[in-house]
Amino acid sequence: MSKPKGFEKPTGVRDYLPHAVAKLRKIENDVLHCMSRWGYRQIMTPTLEYYDTVGVASSTSDQKLYKLLNNRGQALVLRSEMTAPVARVVSSLLKDEPLPLRLSYHANVFRAIEAEAGREAEFFQTGVELVGDDSPEADAEVVALAISSLQAAGVKSFKIAMGHVGFLNGLFQEALPGLPEAQEDLKSHLLSRDYVSFRESIRRLNLSDAQKNELNGLLRLRGGKEICGQALELSDHPLARVSIEHLCKVWEVLVSYGVSQHVMIDLTMIGDFSYYTGMTFEGYASELGFPVCSGGRYDNLLQQFGRPIPSTGFSLKTNRILDGVTGAIEAEELPILIQYDIPRRKEGLQEAMRLRLEGHSVITRLATGPEDLKMVKRLTTDTIEAEGERYGEIYTFVSFVSEHG
Amino acid sequence: MSKPKGFEKPTGVRDYLPHAVAKLRKIENDVLHCMSRWGYRQIMTPTLEYYDTVGVASSTSDQKLYKLLNNRGQALVLRSEMTAPVARVVSSLLKDEPLPLRLSYHANVFRAIEAEAGREAEFFQTGVELVGDDSPEADAEVVALAISSLQAAGVKSFKIAMGHVGFLNGLFQEALPGLPEAQEDLKSHLLSRDYVSFRESIRRLNLSDAQKNELNGLLRLRGGKEICGQALELSDHPLARVSIEHLCKVWEVLVSYGVSQHVMIDLTMIGDFSYYTGMTFEGYASELGFPVCSGGRYDNLLQQFGRPIPSTGFSLKTNRILDGVTGAIEAEELPILIQYDIPRRKEGLQEAMRLRLEGHSVITRLATGPEDLKMVKRLTTDTIEAEGERYGEIYTFVSFVSEHG
Repeated sequence: MSKPKGFEKPTGVRDYLPHAVAKLRKIENDVLHCMSRWGYRQIMTPTLEYYDTVGVASSTSDQKLYKLLNNRGQALVLRSEMTAPVARVVSSLLKDEPLPLRLSYHANVFRAIEAEAGREAEFFQTGVELVGDDSPEADAEVVALAISSLQAAGVKSFKIAMGHVGFLNGLFQEALPGLPEAQEDLKSHLLSRDYVSFRESIRRLNLSDAQKNELNGLLRLRGGKEICGQALELSDHPLARVSIEHLCKVWEVLVSYGVSQHVMIDLTMIGDFSYYTGMTFEGYASELGFPVCSGGRYDNLLQQFGRPIPSTGFSLKTNRILDGVTGAIEAEELPILIQYDIPRRKEGLQEAMRLRLEGHSVITRLATGPEDLKMVKRLTTDTIEAEGERYGEIYTFVSFVSEHG
Repeated sequence: MSKPKGFEKPTGVRDYLPHAVAKLRKIENDVLHCMSRWGYRQIMTPTLEYYDTVGVASSTSDQKLYKLLNNRGQALVLRSEMTAPVARVVSSLLKDEPLPLRLSYHANVFRAIEAEAGREAEFFQTGVELVGDDSPEADAEVVALAISSLQAAGVKSFKIAMGHVGFLNGLFQEALPGLPEAQEDLKSHLLSRDYVSFRESIRRLNLSDAQKNELNGLLRLRGGKEICGQALELSDHPLARVSIEHLCKVWEVLVSYGVSQHVMIDLTMIGDFSYYTGMTFEGYASELGFPVCSGGRYDNLLQQFGRPIPSTGFSLKTNRILDGVTGAIEAEELPILIQYDIPRRKEGLQEAMRLRLEGHSVITRLATGPEDLKMVKRLTTDTIEAEGERYGEIYTFVSFVSEHG
């Protein structure tokens, strides 16, 4: 193993230069502001958490957690997502707050996935948790807020795919009773959206052709509200039925919000977090090949922190939005340059302070003599070039005789 | 070692509840905005860096670095400060940019110091680096910007203490030639501001009384610009002389900025980072017992990343400012509550969407019947209480007959 060179950074992490930071900060601020208009209040949690509590509860697979030991020999993790840390806070500092609680966050999270090329080891999530409300209204609220948040982030065209873990569980329990391994196998194919392997797994099962057709029928359950009716024909398992009825109600609330045109029902969808217990959803931007948000209901997570209450939420994959959203940010104002010599330094620096108070961005520099003054060329009414650098305005305060004076 | 309880978080890290986040975010935004008005552009770097590069260069003592291994067995650290990561970026992604470079950052940094009670393992720094300018103007600019940043952060009353590593080095080389250990011993007492041990160390040295008095005289070198003259009397070592002359020039520029009333010269001060090579400074808030900012010149650091250029900068200790600044934040607007029943749901939710577009914060809830409507009590013209919770306004959209309707 060779030693890293001085200027190298670890695989999977990145630097953000000023232009990218301006864009990322704008998305962050606009989305958090949107969430605050929906009554969500921002919290912050530490980067480091105990492995045994948040690490285990987060349900990021163990080999994807960054682990380290503290001075006391306790196992810590770098947080891999924000739902488990928020659950910990709801169960501790906020345990006496009246429900429902509406909380938002913006945070960097970590996944030890450097083996996979191109995957990020550190990335940003901006999201909400609606804690203490198990109604379809609550699920619809977070879906509608996800839509508003994507719009606030500047994502022009997108679709939310909404499913239900309970429907899948009901369907599989009915079709494959007592075969939990076969059920998990099918679910894992759905999680990776590998429908070829899904069909192949079904083909190898010891079932009648009718039963196999029924299971394969699941793959057709993607579309508008009509999918709910088709789903009820496919399974009359009580869990599947209750789940579909819940999803229908969520849809109705989304119609009331006036946002159902952004939503489709996709019953093949399974949240990528094992803690989801109900409705799950993912958002896809037209111009991007991967989800830009994901969320769902997790009614059993808080129990692990000693406070059994239902919750629902989502997070935006803020980095992906940053990389995908083009040209949303307005051009920054060019700074003003103030050049001065020592005799007129006070004038120059005081003028800089005055312009900054007015809100301008001002750079100052000492010119040691006439030959050290920046050569100036006006490009447009609000752009001046000085030796390759651009400024909005250049003011010169010098006592020596010069054509610039 | 007992297993942590479900709701526990590691020692030395903290959760920020909504009120604290609002305050922290306001400080962060106001300070970054101030820095941008001085022409500093924000960058972001990863939390994880290589131990062998940034870890070693950061000059945080080794036992205070959080270390971990990645999948490839390479040693990583959680960044312990931002100067070394910025130096890495300047030497890589920004290596072709014209100098000077003005960069700002806001970041969480980490120190494995859990043995010391009350010290934080994760905290925030907001700062700047001015890269590629070795002039007194550059040092004065970062001191003046530190003053503006503290004011922007809401710190009402503070003092900047400014010293010079070169003066101390010159003085000690002159007084204790060929005794690097004795020099280091004295410096370590200055770093911890332990003047009793400083005097005691001098007492034990094999020096004449006159020489001892001279070294002890250092402790009196704290005050206004007159200190520079007194310092020159104490030592005529070339390095000490050049350093004091530089400091005098920095002072003159600060006078031109009109901010020297916030500054004192303290030649006993030694920066707490071993990479400082010139002027160093610390800011003290009147109401707080610890520094709220620190900075200085580090002309040799960038060389470690392959680009030998002089630099100067500072960082605010943003957490300490958060804890120390009282009541700076204006009261948040109370949210509007919209209650509705199913028949009038669309009206209620659409009204919520309309009010949010206007910039209001709105919470919605379904009332399942007349008995489920929140009992409302008006407290003031803009505060309404409903079962213990406060709202700015409450609108009710229900079809059932009710005194609230």
